[in-house]
Amino acid sequence: MKEKMDFRAEVREMAGKAKEASHQLPRLSTDIKNRALFEMADDLERGRERLIEENRKDLSAAKKVSLSSAMMDRLRLTHQVIKGMADGLREVARLPDPVGEVVKMWKRPNGLMIGRMRIPIGVIGIIYESRPNVTAEAAGLCLKSGNSVILRGGSEAFHSNQAIGQILCSALVKAGIPQEAIQIFPHTEREAIQEMLQLEGEINLIIPRGGEELIRFVTDHSKIPVIQHYKGVCHIFVDESADLETATRVCLNAKVQRPGVCNAMETLLVHESVARRFLPNITKTLQKEGVELRGCPQTRRIVPRIKAAKEEDWSTEYLDLILSIRVVKGIEEAIKHIATYGSFHTESILTSDYGNAQRFLREVNSSCVLVNASTRFNDGFELGLGAEIGISTSKLHAFGPMGLEELTTTKFIVYGEGQIRS
Amino acid sequence: MKEKMDFRAEVREMAGKAKEASHQLPRLSTDIKNRALFEMADDLERGRERLIEENRKDLSAAKKVSLSSAMMDRLRLTHQVIKGMADGLREVARLPDPVGEVVKMWKRPNGLMIGRMRIPIGVIGIIYESRPNVTAEAAGLCLKSGNSVILRGGSEAFHSNQAIGQILCSALVKAGIPQEAIQIFPHTEREAIQEMLQLEGEINLIIPRGGEELIRFVTDHSKIPVIQHYKGVCHIFVDESADLETATRVCLNAKVQRPGVCNAMETLLVHESVARRFLPNITKTLQKEGVELRGCPQTRRIVPRIKAAKEEDWSTEYLDLILSIRVVKGIEEAIKHIATYGSFHTESILTSDYGNAQRFLREVNSSCVLVNASTRFNDGFELGLGAEIGISTSKLHAFGPMGLEELTTTKFIVYGEGQIRS
Repeated sequence: MKEKMDFRAEVREMAGKAKEASHQLPRLSTDIKNRALFEMADDLERGRERLIEENRKDLSAAKKVSLSSAMMDRLRLTHQVIKGMADGLREVARLPDPVGEVVKMWKRPNGLMIGRMRIPIGVIGIIYESRPNVTAEAAGLCLKSGNSVILRGGSEAFHSNQAIGQILCSALVKAGIPQEAIQIFPHTEREAIQEMLQLEGEINLIIPRGGEELIRFVTDHSKIPVIQHYKGVCHIFVDESADLETATRVCLNAKVQRPGVCNAMETLLVHESVARRFLPNITKTLQKEGVELRGCPQTRRIVPRIKAAKEEDWSTEYLDLILSIRVVKGIEEAIKHIATYGSFHTESILTSDYGNAQRFLREVNSSCVLVNASTRFNDGFELGLGAEIGISTSKLHAFGPMGLEELTTTKFIVYGEGQIRS
Repeated sequence: MKEKMDFRAEVREMAGKAKEASHQLPRLSTDIKNRALFEMADDLERGRERLIEENRKDLSAAKKVSLSSAMMDRLRLTHQVIKGMADGLREVARLPDPVGEVVKMWKRPNGLMIGRMRIPIGVIGIIYESRPNVTAEAAGLCLKSGNSVILRGGSEAFHSNQAIGQILCSALVKAGIPQEAIQIFPHTEREAIQEMLQLEGEINLIIPRGGEELIRFVTDHSKIPVIQHYKGVCHIFVDESADLETATRVCLNAKVQRPGVCNAMETLLVHESVARRFLPNITKTLQKEGVELRGCPQTRRIVPRIKAAKEEDWSTEYLDLILSIRVVKGIEEAIKHIATYGSFHTESILTSDYGNAQRFLREVNSSCVLVNASTRFNDGFELGLGAEIGISTSKLHAFGPMGLEELTTTKFIVYGEGQIRS
């Protein structure tokens, strides 16, 4: 019991310090924040031997519990991964500072000048799994946007995260920024997370990054607002009027360019009137790239060599070289299929019909809706937002890629000359 | 047990219908929505005798439980209140439709045109107390912004809310809009609210409107995102360089023009170097208007006739003709006082010093920060947003007055010409 009490006190103390630091961060000049980011980047590169050593502890522990090789890959810090982290921080330093930006300003009939100014959210808790490079990435984005951050990584990356954290904090101190702006949560037990999720007054936002089970756990236990990044069951609809050569290129890109990510295509919808012309070719092309195909009955009448899709295929995020295919009567049925089985992530229509393009853009309410482009473009960098902290599939506050701007909120500012309300 | 089960099923069914309707609302034309809003307004006025009759049932029940006269006032429907509801709906009809607005559009080097388009949030649950006119107001704003709404008013206004709801829904039907877009929650038990707060998949946002205790209850029990509208402990800081005549006018307006609302001033901070010149006059003026004053020791050395403020006064929202006064050393201490005791609602600085004005605007992170203007301007209409559904004191999604725009989110839209990711 005593231990539990101490433990709770520790979590609270940490959040209290983060809140304290968050009062100072909004006032930091862009220059100081950028100096800290460049310092962090250099220090990570300079400290790479130590990082690799600490990472080795995690790797050998992971080997003992037989972590999958994919997980081992994500956990491993190499010179290249460390360079990637450092470059990521430099990239964030080069992005415009969102804090203090006045996004809009207007004048009222009584002469008041009203504006909306971006300010940091306050204290952000990030709860994530395996990849230790998230530590540097998330810390950099939170610092630049003026937020304190509490980072709670997975137990499997404990030593790596602690070591990265130490380097980041010492860089903060060198730049004259309170080191409590970036804190690495030292407990990996779920109970410790639960404690953290109660601190509504201290922490303003929780962002879980990881599998569906983790996100569900966090959402269910949090009194703090949570922005969810659920799965991406992304669709491409090849319309009757699509240029089939373009369609082949785009579908191939959306499925195979990087199948393990959330914006890869998982289901292909094909208009029935082009199915006979399009399906034999695209299925051959995809199979040549090693893609396993699962089709609806109509698809299999045209391409009998492929497996039958089951009902659950339509809502599955494969994250792998697997694709489900369905023939639909037209745009109406395509939109309905997406609304029924989709995950509000990314959908694209391939068409040369103006009306259908506009209708698809209007009526499909996923975080990113495209016309004649690969689903792979739903990404902070590709959309022009810069680095992102994740892709939100929930509609509150942020929907889609969350960049620096989405890590801020706006307050109203008013310039008056003694106006009173009548 | 059986009853409880049925009850849960009923809540779920209601939310399911709201979700179903929410798929159709984003496609409604502005004309149809406006037609429904005008129809609602006319029908409320036409049905006023019935409304007043139903309201009488609530009033007589309220008398039996000895509701306070202030609460009785808020509960009462008169011809004037009904006209106010109707005019409010007409006002919403005249506001621009936020749905489908593209707030920004830019081009990427690869030729992709990227935009952010406003879309409705989905299904919104509003949980409120006593005032039945909130029913029409909230329903109108949700309809115009393309959201389904489930309205749960207080038990004391049960009959009034049901009657208003019936009129609104029949107007929807006349305009060809699914009547499930506006539903009046028929249960006033807290257990019923708790059920509603579990429906994360069906309801996208909960907005509680009412006392702190209600908001706390909703936040603690909700799995759905909640936007809080906590108290307004609003400050005015009279700086050393303030024009004292303006200061008197603005402070008087902020305190007495409507003391019972959240944007009224509750604490006055005065720079020590003008305290002797300003306090005798402003206190006299305020006392003449019936304001009870509670001062810090320094204030009382200058104006001994007023009561001493206790520690809890600094964080109290009086909502009444009461004001606490503190003398501070300067802007630094004023900002610190606001950060310590404030509620992130509304703060104003009265000054003629450019640097202090800018510093106050930058460093005070409340939902609305003003220079040389009354706190009473933190209001949707006054800021130019039109009607509001409340004033958020939480930073996620909306901070400050929530108008039609804040009842939407944005999705990314992308116009391409066959681009793929390399």
